[in-house]
Amino acid sequence: MTLLEAAAALRRREVSSAELTAAALHRIERLNPSTNAMQTVMAEAARERAKLADEELARGEGRGPLHGIPIAVKDLFYTKGVRTTGGSKLFESHVPDHDATVVEWLRGGGAVLVGKTGMHELAYGITSSNPHFGAVRNPWDRDRIPGGSSGGSGAAVAAGMVAMAMGSDTGGSIRVPAAYCGVVGLKPTYGRVSRYGAMPLAFSLDHMGPLTRSVRDAGAVLNVIGGYDPRDETSSRRAAENYVPDLAPSLRGVRIGLPENFYFERLDPDVDAAVRAAFHSAEARGAEIVPLPVPEIAAINTVARLILMAEASALHERHLEQRDLFGADVLALLDQGRLLPATDYINAQRLRRGMQREFARLWKRVDCLFTPTTPITAPRIGETAATICGLDEDVRLATTRLVRAINALGLPAVSIPCGADRRGLPVGLQIVGPPFAEALILRVAQALVPAEVPVPRL
Amino acid sequence: MTLLEAAAALRRREVSSAELTAAALHRIERLNPSTNAMQTVMAEAARERAKLADEELARGEGRGPLHGIPIAVKDLFYTKGVRTTGGSKLFESHVPDHDATVVEWLRGGGAVLVGKTGMHELAYGITSSNPHFGAVRNPWDRDRIPGGSSGGSGAAVAAGMVAMAMGSDTGGSIRVPAAYCGVVGLKPTYGRVSRYGAMPLAFSLDHMGPLTRSVRDAGAVLNVIGGYDPRDETSSRRAAENYVPDLAPSLRGVRIGLPENFYFERLDPDVDAAVRAAFHSAEARGAEIVPLPVPEIAAINTVARLILMAEASALHERHLEQRDLFGADVLALLDQGRLLPATDYINAQRLRRGMQREFARLWKRVDCLFTPTTPITAPRIGETAATICGLDEDVRLATTRLVRAINALGLPAVSIPCGADRRGLPVGLQIVGPPFAEALILRVAQALVPAEVPVPRL
Repeated sequence: MTLLEAAAALRRREVSSAELTAAALHRIERLNPSTNAMQTVMAEAARERAKLADEELARGEGRGPLHGIPIAVKDLFYTKGVRTTGGSKLFESHVPDHDATVVEWLRGGGAVLVGKTGMHELAYGITSSNPHFGAVRNPWDRDRIPGGSSGGSGAAVAAGMVAMAMGSDTGGSIRVPAAYCGVVGLKPTYGRVSRYGAMPLAFSLDHMGPLTRSVRDAGAVLNVIGGYDPRDETSSRRAAENYVPDLAPSLRGVRIGLPENFYFERLDPDVDAAVRAAFHSAEARGAEIVPLPVPEIAAINTVARLILMAEASALHERHLEQRDLFGADVLALLDQGRLLPATDYINAQRLRRGMQREFARLWKRVDCLFTPTTPITAPRIGETAATICGLDEDVRLATTRLVRAINALGLPAVSIPCGADRRGLPVGLQIVGPPFAEALILRVAQALVPAEVPVPRL
Repeated sequence: MTLLEAAAALRRREVSSAELTAAALHRIERLNPSTNAMQTVMAEAARERAKLADEELARGEGRGPLHGIPIAVKDLFYTKGVRTTGGSKLFESHVPDHDATVVEWLRGGGAVLVGKTGMHELAYGITSSNPHFGAVRNPWDRDRIPGGSSGGSGAAVAAGMVAMAMGSDTGGSIRVPAAYCGVVGLKPTYGRVSRYGAMPLAFSLDHMGPLTRSVRDAGAVLNVIGGYDPRDETSSRRAAENYVPDLAPSLRGVRIGLPENFYFERLDPDVDAAVRAAFHSAEARGAEIVPLPVPEIAAINTVARLILMAEASALHERHLEQRDLFGADVLALLDQGRLLPATDYINAQRLRRGMQREFARLWKRVDCLFTPTTPITAPRIGETAATICGLDEDVRLATTRLVRAINALGLPAVSIPCGADRRGLPVGLQIVGPPFAEALILRVAQALVPAEVPVPRL
């Protein structure tokens, strides 16, 4: 069941929050040993909260579509009284004394938090093969990564443990696991969703957003978690513009950009075919496809990577003497980031502003862009190189090369399931829009996504 | 004559813009050889513009208080068709094809631009002893520096060449020459005055503002140059809040902070006495003096200096191979800035945001702060150390230690003449206020400044 289906069933009294929660906990119990999607299960607290939700619903005190629905959040969102590790040994025993804004608002909307999802160490990577808490495994093939860094959230939603799990995205960390796990992942516009109480990785690139099984669900969650928050100094006043669902199946009048450069180079042929089919599908629903060149994405990726490395190292510098508390990949990245000169960082931020201005001109010609989310489908755990079109490419670079630039640009983007490869592994379609155009990209996504998103046999 | 006195005389037809302009050019001709305040004199263009202004005034087409008044701008403001060097050999022959916003708006207000003032090379220093274009000399004692980097603007106003000259202030570069030359210097709130077309030094610290002979003049100029400018991405929407003059001589109800720490340590005794007298004077006019500790200014100075060095080096990095085009002091600073790690810069910006929040709390207790502008009066040209209270201190560090933090905080501050030392050299009083409180600090300044600001005998 999707979140909104569950909400409808609750409203019709066909099911209770207690039952939904028990089912979620049961599924976690059954599937967590093989997927490791949940880092912490909050069974008792969830049951209590579900009971309260049922009482409120019985009294007619509805709090909206999330009321009584079991959800999970990535283990970097502060949860009052519940351990929040950020996937790191550094915070192994860290128990926050307050909730992140997103958690507070989700709870305010009546959601039942059943657990914290596993993640890449410090959110600094895309495999979610965590050296401290174990690798998260892809429900479609447990020898494969779920993507990351919000791998646990992707796996939990794909495995049907919860209908929604919150993730964070600094260089693709919501969209990549959405693509590799075959679910919907929304990275909202920078400034739309509060980061207060979410462990940061890179101040100017971090975004928070939901992973769900339907596009409508992503919109419903955005309505709850979006909004201005004075506790987050990057929160935008425009964050208060709610996502207003307009899910007409027709795409008449929508101009969809088909990038002529970068995005369709070096793709797995199955990914290429699946994404091209999405263009046809959009055209059949009345959209206009506009082939056009996009600004230099490779350069934006370089700038985004430099900014990420410098900001992440600035943040964790003070912990770097405790070298044995880090995994090898994260430690190497943090060490490298310390060698970057301030002048490069400042010039990268300047270039980034220029690229944002350049990209802004694109939206005069099209309403959104379609691209593949990743050039490949989920690699095997431990695999460091992927062979694409006969050439080897570092798995981390390949996985992030189509998503990373969007973080530097701060644009909203959603990854939706878009067919499967020859092995049956999910392919992701990325839809990118102008700032604060979540309503538009979700409308387009909804028109394209199949009525039933395929689920892995578990 | 002050700017507003000249404006009144023009309105009464006691004098023409042509006469004012001729007088300014005559005074420049007489005094520039000994002060080197003007880098470029625009005699012909000024005479033409003055003629036009007289015609407009005769037709009753008044453009406001600046109409027909001779002014100058620091040689880092772009002037269409007129060389703009930034005090650097790099831009020795640079002739911009457009005006800076500030120049455009001043011209729009009818001001007659008579010249471009000399400055410290690239605005990166406080002596204005320019290795390429010669040292600017202090009209009060031509063996002494006028301060910098807007030294030519301070000297030109003090020498009576013009009633107003625009400066820029990245670490004190308006307030220091105002103090050393005995004039008024206003650094407005960050975001209030457009920087478009002004050669930058450090993106997050640069401010533009006027040097004048009266406080009222500074207010009149702010009314013309303040305002939102979409061409400057740091321009604030609040920039449109005009300075509304409220120059009642009474200070009843105004709470003036007397810093208990930092600002009155290691001062020349004459500076100390002059500034303390200003508190008595304010109290006599009804102000309440509130002794209080201020947040750690030394730490903010360190942060501001690191940010300045990194941003300046990032900006000029591409020119650094042409080593013989730089003076020794600027080259050394630019080289040093390249060695700063990105992590230090990022952490400095983070600390800065924390300090801004901490400082914001101060404004609940007081309306403004009084401090000395500089701990000493103008040093001799070539002097590298100043002896203060028996201890030697680097002239550059001493000169900037009471002003630099205010750039990192982005607060408005004005330096006004406040007596003289035993040699007759001017002392400056710095008045600092909360963001966008220019009206308040100018009101307080106006109540304190003597009716006649002393002028050097020339």
